[in-house]
Order: sequence, then C-alpha cells, then structure tokens
Amino acid sequence: MISSPLIEELIQSLKCLPGVGAKSAQRMAFNLLERNRDGALRLSRTLHDAMEHVSNCERCRTFTESNICHICADPRRAESAQICVVESPQDVLAIEQTLQFQGRYFVLMGHLSPIDGIGPNELHLDMLQRRLEEEKVDEVILATNPTVEGEATAHYIYQMCQKLGVNATRIAHGVPVGGELEFIDGNTLIHAFTGRRKF
Amino acid sequence: MISSPLIEELIQSLKCLPGVGAKSAQRMAFNLLERNRDGALRLSRTLHDAMEHVSNCERCRTFTESNICHICADPRRAESAQICVVESPQDVLAIEQTLQFQGRYFVLMGHLSPIDGIGPNELHLDMLQRRLEEEKVDEVILATNPTVEGEATAHYIYQMCQKLGVNATRIAHGVPVGGELEFIDGNTLIHAFTGRRKF
Ligand SMILES: [Zn+2]
Ligand SMILES: [Zn+2]
Repeated sequence: MISSPLIEELIQSLKCLPGVGAKSAQRMAFNLLERNRDGALRLSRTLHDAMEHVSNCERCRTFTESNICHICADPRRAESAQICVVESPQDVLAIEQTLQFQGRYFVLMGHLSPIDGIGPNELHLDMLQRRLEEEKVDEVILATNPTVEGEATAHYIYQMCQKLGVNATRIAHGVPVGGELEFIDGNTLIHAFTGRRKF
Repeated sequence: MISSPLIEELIQSLKCLPGVGAKSAQRMAFNLLERNRDGALRLSRTLHDAMEHVSNCERCRTFTESNICHICADPRRAESAQICVVESPQDVLAIEQTLQFQGRYFVLMGHLSPIDGIGPNELHLDMLQRRLEEEKVDEVILATNPTVEGEATAHYIYQMCQKLGVNATRIAHGVPVGGELEFIDGNTLIHAFTGRRKF
C-alpha cells in the first residue's frame, strides 16, 4: 500500500503505456518524483497538447496538427503521381526513412475487419476514391500488412482502382534482406517462392 | 521525420521515463494517439498533480501529499518504538508489503555521497536526531542498501545513535531465501559467512 493516493493514481495511469506493467509503472513513478520532476511536467504538457491537437490530415489521414500534413502540402510530392496506401502513420514513417518513395500517401488508420465493424466507411475509402477521381494518379501502391486483414484490404482497394481505371501494385513480400531462411516463418517463405523472379 | 512537431515533442518527452528509448517512445506515442487518448489525458493530469503536490512527510520524509504520511499519523505505529531507516520510499513499500514491521520509518531520500555533495544535511539527519531525542525510541533498524555508500551511511547513523544512547541494529545480508549458492555474488557470500549463526 502506497502512502499517497496521488502516487497510486500516477502508477495506475502509467499502466496505459504499452509494455508497462505494475512493476515498471511503480519504478517510473518514483524515478520521476525523485529525479526528474521537470521532465515529468514536460511530459504532462506534451501528452495533453498532442492528444488535444493532433488530428488527421484532410487529404491522406495521417496524424498532423495542421489541416494538411507537410507531405500533402509539398507540391514536389505530387509530381510522381503515386499514392502509397498504408495502415498506419508509423508505416509512413518507416517508408519515409528509406528516402526512396517520392509520392504521397493514404493512411487507412486500420484495416477492413467486419467482426470489429470496420468497413470501407470507417477507413474513409470514399476520400481515397475522390482523390483517385480528382487527382492525376498513375499508380496506387498497396502497402498494407501481409496479414489476412491487410491482404483483404489491399484486394478491396485493388478492385476499386480497377473500376476507376487506375493502376494498382502490391509491395513484394519475402525473406527480409539479411534474414536467414531457417528462421523465416512458413507464410513468408511461401510469399518468397511465389514472388520469385529471374536471376 | 515525423509529420507533426507535437508528436515529435511527445516522443522526446516520453524518453524521460526510465527504460524508454527512442523506439519504444515512438511506439508509445502512436499507440496512445491511435487507441487510448483518454488514458493519455488521464496520465497527463496525474503526472501534473503528483509532481506539483507530492512532497516529503514532515516526520519521516517519505513521499506524501499530506503534511504527515499515513504511517506517521497512525498512533499504533508508534507503540513498537522502532524506527527503520531506509534510503527511498520504494524501500518503505517493499518492507510494508512483508506486513512484518509495525514501527515507523525515516527515509533518507539517498545516501551519504561526499563526491556528489550529499552529506548529513542533505539527508536531513538533524530531523532524525530530533526524533531520537524527543520520541521514545527503543531501536533504530538500519536498512540502507548493502553498498559502499549504504554501509557508510548506516555507520554514520549508528554512531549518532551511540552518542544519543539509542540501540541501533543492521538488517542481515546474505543468500536470499530460495537463492542458489552458485549464482550469488562473492560480496553477498562474504556477508552470509560473517553473519552465520548457530544451527
Ligand atoms: Zn497528408
Ligand atoms: Zn511519515
């Protein structure tokens, strides 16, 4: 039993962080109180500001505190006429870090999941359709996750593209570069074999 | 590069949490934004309230938002006339969880460390001395950590107790219950041997 209801509440609420259980929440609470109250107050402010002001880009739905994110607002990013469809803002981040893709994004903020009541409306696919109708788009790159739901979502958007006469491609799945065959799961190996190309 | 300065700031400030690096801070920030904004806002409030209102008990110096902590305020805890001296509020918590100790505490909030400028004044040992002079204390149990600094601190307080004619004891150090000898460090083994008792 902790001598302070405020510390008890702090420990409870720290457990909302992914990967933080009772023991680490307790360690975090005391560590901040003992050594870093300024850092904790700064975290309190940034949590509040981010949760209150970060919303979705009006064009690609990624997280931004502006109406339009900096990628959508950059006219050079429209030149490639490619739209990469991903499930989450973290996927955008991962792709941006490769510095290879020069086009724009559409972020689904999830994937089709009828059991959870997530259909085309919840993924705002009408927004994507409108962009495909209004913008000059040469290629939609489907970069959803290689899971059952991700594949189903990619397939649904592929059919939408076909109706609109827009090219759609799917990113390759296979053995990661540097990966060792014996440690790769069977599903990935199947993808690696079916996606094989001439040497 | 992240599309939102607010998310960037949130990730930076999450790194003030012990054990949280750049990767987990990023995962935490996106997870909260995507799935748990209510939990994050609650964490923002509890962080603020705890950092602003949690201070030190006027008698034992443990963390509390009251003037006097609930242990010091409990008259039954004075009956045993024992004071257990520990380094941190987390030590109080660990001892309370055993449900064995019925006395009261004095929390040093650290240990003597001349290099870091931490002497008897910084540990508020004058407060402990006043309690030993004013309260009826039968025994001071020195439960500082079995480190060089913890031992030096225990020794300093032992000498203070001697001058005041108060009994002082040191908690036993040795092989943890359930521990296997071969995995115990040499220093602990030395303590286990020198502290041996008749079977
Ligand atoms: Zn955008
Ligand atoms: Zn107290």
